[in-house]
Amino acid sequence: MRYVNFGDESALSPDDFFMDQALHEARLAYGEDEIPIGAVVVCQGKIIGRGHNLTERLNDVSAHAEMQALTAAANFMGGKYLKDCTLYVTLEPCVMCAGASYWFQIGKIVFGAYDTRMGFGRLNQKITHPKTIVTGGIRENECAELMRSFFKNKR
Amino acid sequence: MRYVNFGDESALSPDDFFMDQALHEARLAYGEDEIPIGAVVVCQGKIIGRGHNLTERLNDVSAHAEMQALTAAANFMGGKYLKDCTLYVTLEPCVMCAGASYWFQIGKIVFGAYDTRMGFGRLNQKITHPKTIVTGGIRENECAELMRSFFKNKR
Repeated sequence: MRYVNFGDESALSPDDFFMDQALHEARLAYGEDEIPIGAVVVCQGKIIGRGHNLTERLNDVSAHAEMQALTAAANFMGGKYLKDCTLYVTLEPCVMCAGASYWFQIGKIVFGAYDTRMGFGRLNQKITHPKTIVTGGIRENECAELMRSFFKNKR
Repeated sequence: MRYVNFGDESALSPDDFFMDQALHEARLAYGEDEIPIGAVVVCQGKIIGRGHNLTERLNDVSAHAEMQALTAAANFMGGKYLKDCTLYVTLEPCVMCAGASYWFQIGKIVFGAYDTRMGFGRLNQKITHPKTIVTGGIRENECAELMRSFFKNKR
């Protein structure tokens, strides 16, 4: 008889855990017929800002998940900068959102799926804050699959 | 006896006229102790969105004049895109705002003073929408002088 050991598998890394939360936000967007992108901002292990894409609901093409989460986090902090915070987002941020992260001086950006067309990584110059660390590809498949599924249903 | 002819001098070009309106917004910011940057969005000769820098009042480092004016204009239009509109702004937009203008598909950007440090023009790749026309240097001195005066008083 073999036992399945869930121990290690169920212990999520912090990045996995928080990307899971960003995915939760993305699924909320999906349920509202918004392009399914979600984001959370984490400071010292706590989520201090959440958001998902609201471009349809707000009729505002700039109402990206990151903008919601970053402004919510900054508002929560009562201060201006998010130097010790990490932005988790299911899709590689666009130039606008990466530009916003500069002003917030976000400490770290962790994104899920790559966006080779609109992602800020396509630029050959750094537009994030000099101190911002960037990691991509966390839970990449789940993040990308959510987008694929959404657009497949739209066709 | 000579008469002074004010005719030609008082007839402002459209660019001058609307940059004057953006300067008016910038002066409002100045009066509120905000970095004096103002913007208006114009469609078919009418101002459909206005805004000035509100980073202090909103405690939000992303509350730039352009973001206010663009979202106000898009809201006024009830639609999403600003293809036939012009954004007038007293300072060269940053990467975030230029990135936002991409999503709004703004037809034209006319800015006043150049911002060699933070302006999007420092990038060697185009980040505005392929169809967006960009012009800089309109009422450059007045726009720049407002900034200089503001920061001089801050020291």
